[in-house]
Amino acid sequence: MPVPGPGRPRDAQVDRKALRAALALYAELGWAKFTLDAVARRAGIGKAALYRRWPSREKLIADAIESALVVPSFDIDTGTLRQDLRELIGSMLAHYLGPYGLAGLRLHVEARAYPELFSPVTGVIRKSRVLEARQMIRRAIARGELGPEASPTLILDTLLGAVLQHVLATPEELREDMRAQAPAYADRLIDFVLTAATTLYPPD
Amino acid sequence: MPVPGPGRPRDAQVDRKALRAALALYAELGWAKFTLDAVARRAGIGKAALYRRWPSREKLIADAIESALVVPSFDIDTGTLRQDLRELIGSMLAHYLGPYGLAGLRLHVEARAYPELFSPVTGVIRKSRVLEARQMIRRAIARGELGPEASPTLILDTLLGAVLQHVLATPEELREDMRAQAPAYADRLIDFVLTAATTLYPPD
Repeated sequence: MPVPGPGRPRDAQVDRKALRAALALYAELGWAKFTLDAVARRAGIGKAALYRRWPSREKLIADAIESALVVPSFDIDTGTLRQDLRELIGSMLAHYLGPYGLAGLRLHVEARAYPELFSPVTGVIRKSRVLEARQMIRRAIARGELGPEASPTLILDTLLGAVLQHVLATPEELREDMRAQAPAYADRLIDFVLTAATTLYPPD
Repeated sequence: MPVPGPGRPRDAQVDRKALRAALALYAELGWAKFTLDAVARRAGIGKAALYRRWPSREKLIADAIESALVVPSFDIDTGTLRQDLRELIGSMLAHYLGPYGLAGLRLHVEARAYPELFSPVTGVIRKSRVLEARQMIRRAIARGELGPEASPTLILDTLLGAVLQHVLATPEELREDMRAQAPAYADRLIDFVLTAATTLYPPD
């Protein structure tokens, strides 16, 4: 049996508020200016409650990133590669354009600025995504949609990278247009990448 | 004739030191914690000299970003599309892996967090890059390397995005390996994208 800690029991709603405020502040200010006090203020909760739950800002940001699934899951299995990729690209576009998209981008940048702190988190995300993505390509090979030597790296780098590049290169004032055209863009992009993949790695 | 301002004439070496320190600090801390005092300390120059030259942190970061050409030029014309792309990808990889790569990535992220401040800078970079990149594809069409309906957006999003994704997804401890394998990766990537482009947009 776990020994109950001191103080009141945890309040799930307070936790949720704190995690949400933490991500919003992190997206806005970055790590250098991220403090527990600012999170408590933004969340509208007492400092004591916040410090009891998260004794350090490192612990809080790690939990916030985990809770928000800052990068969506790649564990998709619809039965065809094209449909798997359609769902993958759709969820990445929704993520980058959604409330946690900026936190996710910052996380990648700050993993380079503060590797000791953020590399464990990005490392876990990266490994699970790489494994899930490889599974997706492996299933396509097993179904005879691609040849056995198909490169998951090139297929995923071009697809996911294009989405990232597209979002970063679109100016703020065109964001709503981009949102409206996202499904059409995703289809053209998947066509483009699958054309390369099936030409270079034809099924046996 | 411009009227000389008060105080001593500008010292080019002090300027260079300040701009370099500004970019390093910005890459490390982000905008929220970027101050003129911290830049003066990092550069080892007097606060008065720094404030005389740059009365605000906004002006300093704008000049620093401009001076460093945080994103390399896309104005490349070697005579073949493949060689143009090889040089483009080579300079993007060198940029992301170089001393200003992190500042460049941060700039894109912070343009979303602080659009009023950074959008003018990223807007200028974006427009000149888009025009240069379109020229590159247009010349390839004129030489008969691609059909007239070739999409510069898809070709450039997949190429530049893959480079970005590749750099962001590579953990710190594999960075030296990535650097060593960068030319081979660039060649495979260009093959992949040109396969899609020439299959979908065959020359007449």
